[in-house]
This record gives sequence, C-alpha cells and structure tokens, in this order.
Amino acid sequence: MMHLVLADSELELIPEKIAGHPSVRGYRSRILDSSLHHNAMKSLEDGYRRGRPDIVHISLLVAMESILNREGMLRVYVHTRGDTVIYINPETRMIKNYGRFKGLMQQLLERGRVPSNGEALMEARNETLAQLLEKLDGRKILFSPEGKRSSMEEIMEEDVVCIIGGFPHGDFLSPVYDMADEVVSIYHEMLPAWTVVMEAIVSYENKFIFRQP
Amino acid sequence: MMHLVLADSELELIPEKIAGHPSVRGYRSRILDSSLHHNAMKSLEDGYRRGRPDIVHISLLVAMESILNREGMLRVYVHTRGDTVIYINPETRMIKNYGRFKGLMQQLLERGRVPSNGEALMEARNETLAQLLEKLDGRKILFSPEGKRSSMEEIMEEDVVCIIGGFPHGDFLSPVYDMADEVVSIYHEMLPAWTVVMEAIVSYENKFIFRQP
Repeated sequence: MMHLVLADSELELIPEKIAGHPSVRGYRSRILDSSLHHNAMKSLEDGYRRGRPDIVHISLLVAMESILNREGMLRVYVHTRGDTVIYINPETRMIKNYGRFKGLMQQLLERGRVPSNGEALMEARNETLAQLLEKLDGRKILFSPEGKRSSMEEIMEEDVVCIIGGFPHGDFLSPVYDMADEVVSIYHEMLPAWTVVMEAIVSYENKFIFRQP
Repeated sequence: MMHLVLADSELELIPEKIAGHPSVRGYRSRILDSSLHHNAMKSLEDGYRRGRPDIVHISLLVAMESILNREGMLRVYVHTRGDTVIYINPETRMIKNYGRFKGLMQQLLERGRVPSNGEALMEARNETLAQLLEKLDGRKILFSPEGKRSSMEEIMEEDVVCIIGGFPHGDFLSPVYDMADEVVSIYHEMLPAWTVVMEAIVSYENKFIFRQP
C-alpha cells in the first residue's frame, strides 16, 4: 500500500482579513485563489505562496485516476497550511472542472464532509501533519530538493508513505524533516507537486504491480 | 526522443450552430466547454464527447512539467477533432489556471500562434493526424483498450511516437489504426488521457534516463 500525503498544501478559505477587499468581493467562491485574489493577498503573511487550489486539484486528478488507485493500493491525504487533513475515499471520482472542484473544497472546509449525508467521499478533520503520519504504516519518505539524490525505483518499498509538498515555492511549514525516515531528492530542480506524485506512483506500479509474475 | 501526440482531442471554438443558444451566450470564452455548454451541445453531432479542454489542459500540465521534458527529450503535439495540430515549444511553461488556459487556446485557434510576435510558444496549423505522423521519427505506438495487452516498460523504445486519445469516451475519429506500428493496451479499463501520458513518460524516463550509468 502507498500512502500519499500532500503536506502543507496551500488550500484554505479566504481569510477574514481580506474578505472585504475589492479584488475578493466580486467572486462567489470562498476558496482563496492567487490567480484571482492576487492584489488582496499582498497584505497576507506568506501571501506569495498561498491560495493554490490548482496544485491540489491537478495532484488529485493524477493520483485518483492512476492505475495504482484503481488497483486499490493507494490512499491519498491532503494536509493544509491550516492543519486540516482531508481524507479521500479511494472510490472518489475527482471532479475535472476546476471551478466545480473549488466549490467542493469550499463545502468540505465549511462543513467537514462531502456529501452531507451517506458514505463520505471526502472528510476534513482538524489534524496536524504529525497526527496524520503517526497513523500511517510504512517507511516515511519526504521529497525535497534538500534531500539525498536517489532513484524513485530504488527507494520504493511495498509499504511506503510518500510526503510531497502541496505548495509552489519555499519549504515545508510543518516540522516534517523530524518525522521522515528518509529525505529524498529525485531531480536537481524543484518540481511541481503533481510531477513528484506521478513519478512516485508509476515507479511504484512498475516495481510492485507490472513486474510481478 | 519521445513524441507525444494527443489525437482527436475535443478542443474547438464554439460552433456557429449553437453560438446564439442561451447556455452559451452568457460566457466570454469562445472555447467549447461541456461543463458550461452542456444544454446547447445536445443538438451537436457527437455532442456527448465534445468540448473537453480540461482533458487537454491536464495532459499538457503532466507532460510539460515532467522530468522528461526538462531533459529536452519530449515533444508534444495536440491534434484536434477539427484537424488542427498545435505544436508546443518545449520551453513553454504551461498556464496552471484553467480559465486562463482556455483564453490561451482561444487566441491560438483564432490567430494561429501564441504570442502574437516573437518566438512562438505554441503554433496551430491546419493538418490531419496522418500529415503530422508522417513527419515524426520513431516507432508509432497507439494506445487503445482494443490493443494487445502489454507492459509500458517493455514496449518503450528510445525513438518512439506515443499516440493517445484526447477525448473522454468512444473511439478515435481519425483512421489511426492504419497509421500505427503497434496498438497497445496497458490496462483492462479505459483510462483518462493524462493517466496514459504519465505512464508513458515515467516508464520512458525509468528505462532511458534513470537506469543509464
């Protein structure tokens, strides 16, 4: 089983502080989005990296539609800057339209689950990254340009927890270097989250699914 | 070198026939999008599968941000239902925001190139899939659930042309089965275009980049 954790993801509701700003008021969605709220975000701490639901969306489309997930061997978690952890039911068909995805994330962050009734497809809980990682079995590999240069295929183990940053620049906010068994770099440049996600998933598949007799 | 061809992609400007429909008139973008124009599209031939710029967008984000592209070993082409071929400069940083991506595609389909002046990042030419494939060197592998079940790693060759359908359901519109050297299925279910794109790219990288001395 691979557990995939998108850590310190830049996904959040619009902070109170900028809710009245002209560049924010005109939109119906309450999810912070740097491509819309750029001007208002200049006054926010860490404003240069926040408001990136697009990174979460693309990473989830890559992960949830993978062969690994279809084979039932993948669990995906989104941990956010605000210490919310989104648990995703592996059966979830991720919404492809970006606007609708943001609507879903808003519902999730405001109400804690989607859909409101019946079996949850996604659930949001107040949890730190440490609290999440404690529960997951497997070797904890943190991906970071600061890590030891390694080949994805070599480091993959059958039970593995892959921790990938869900932010566009900078470093992890959570004290994640203390929680990992290994810190690994797969390339000499910073890669987008979904590129690391796809490298991890396909390398795992090739090692543990396709090459098995 | 890998040439990646998204074939018969469901990317087009809004057809004249439905331009006046109430579910179309309210939007500024002139790119057909089934998540917005669903009602109007019922009267279009093949309306059930058309208007999927999201599939092209996600596939391009996966391809252009890959390690393979950063290493200069990938060329990407989008062939559309209307027999336009979009040539993408490997240096292009693909726009992450979906709304802006559609704006770019509109500009490209209306004016033929982006940006208007200077070195082109993307160019749209009137070409059939056959005309494009004639120009590309390498073994032509067509991915289709109808193909022979094979492992991605085994079929990859150093010079290869991967042909992947850029549509959500159904079969290729172009006579592509006659143009391919091999028709291959990598999974027993239909996969989204970007899942096949990532499987092809990472398997190629593992075979020809990471495992080289």
